[in-house]
Amino acid sequence: MSEAVTIVFALFPGITQLDFTAPAQALSRMPGARLAGAAAKLDPIATDSGFAILPTHDFGDAPQADILCVPGGHGVADAIADPATIEFLIRQAAGAAWITSVCTGAFLLGRAGLLGGKRATTHWAYTQLLPLVGAEPAPGRIVEDGNIVTAGGVTSGLDFALTLIARLRGEAAAQAIQLAIEYDPAPPFAGGHPDRAPAAVTDGLKARVYDAAAARMEAALRG
Amino acid sequence: MSEAVTIVFALFPGITQLDFTAPAQALSRMPGARLAGAAAKLDPIATDSGFAILPTHDFGDAPQADILCVPGGHGVADAIADPATIEFLIRQAAGAAWITSVCTGAFLLGRAGLLGGKRATTHWAYTQLLPLVGAEPAPGRIVEDGNIVTAGGVTSGLDFALTLIARLRGEAAAQAIQLAIEYDPAPPFAGGHPDRAPAAVTDGLKARVYDAAAARMEAALRG
Repeated sequence: MSEAVTIVFALFPGITQLDFTAPAQALSRMPGARLAGAAAKLDPIATDSGFAILPTHDFGDAPQADILCVPGGHGVADAIADPATIEFLIRQAAGAAWITSVCTGAFLLGRAGLLGGKRATTHWAYTQLLPLVGAEPAPGRIVEDGNIVTAGGVTSGLDFALTLIARLRGEAAAQAIQLAIEYDPAPPFAGGHPDRAPAAVTDGLKARVYDAAAARMEAALRG
Repeated sequence: MSEAVTIVFALFPGITQLDFTAPAQALSRMPGARLAGAAAKLDPIATDSGFAILPTHDFGDAPQADILCVPGGHGVADAIADPATIEFLIRQAAGAAWITSVCTGAFLLGRAGLLGGKRATTHWAYTQLLPLVGAEPAPGRIVEDGNIVTAGGVTSGLDFALTLIARLRGEAAAQAIQLAIEYDPAPPFAGGHPDRAPAAVTDGLKARVYDAAAARMEAALRG
């Protein structure tokens, strides 16, 4: 029998469904894993994809996490201003062995005071805002600093989860899960990161989406 | 304004949450996309990851799909025996421009009579069963045969969705979505497919999980 490991995801309206689902899918197959999704209320959580997921616990009755994982999404800018969410993260982090985020979930960890002086990453369109929560932007799709692991945008949660599973359960266990979810990626383009995407694609996406989104996040962090 | 495209996911208990979420996340950002998740009832659908998602429609009131997408999961073996699910797929497929599956969702398309004489793929542990629904197993993470697109296991839904978006909206649109979800994969191991995984990892996983799972699927298909 593998030692039990409790993994708690913080959920909030406007969460990016894949930020949450990618690590949940991999971690749910880790021997001994017990997963929970905690939110302010037990009502369905509207994701950014047009669907809704049900929390398993509210913030008051969630189990103590061994691994605390905070996904991101456009709802982060609102969740930053929600004291119940931030207090939950502070309380859980105090007892967690691993404090982790995917995508813009890093800013919730940051608002909870957990990234001060830490190297961290987030979605590429928001990395310049990490100093606003005292973090030092670091290169890499997954950044570890002590027991804090932050991952880049959205799909990085897969690489993050498999890496953490390898750390906790060994490479063979992680490799079996990678094989079970057939994670043998064949993206149609090389440009999944601005370092590799055509400048016109990056600039167009920033102009259409991310300049405003980052400004909204910055206002929330300064608010 | 982009032409509206209605994407309908078939949902059922025991669905693999990432089979559904990966293409939903990418397709939800396609210009003009309208997503629906249809199930037999509007009750929450328990996924394989310990969470639950809410259908947006039941089979009776779901909109006609332009793109019909059937995810997989261990629940497929039960869903195969559910006439309401199969009738829904037959009805939707008759009016859909694209008929698609991720992972073992292929067997639901197959049971609905949609894969007869078609080249197709599914999760690597089940490909040998494709002839039971009249399909011809074909190599590749994504297999197109006419308007039928089948994708391999779980995470292949990302590559599938981005490829379909490029087809429908052009490469620039697909590349922007790939960049938005930072799909710049860095899996920790090379072995996300049995062709590349160590034989011991594949054999161990088959013995622990997939020999029984494939036998259960085979029994359902012959039942």
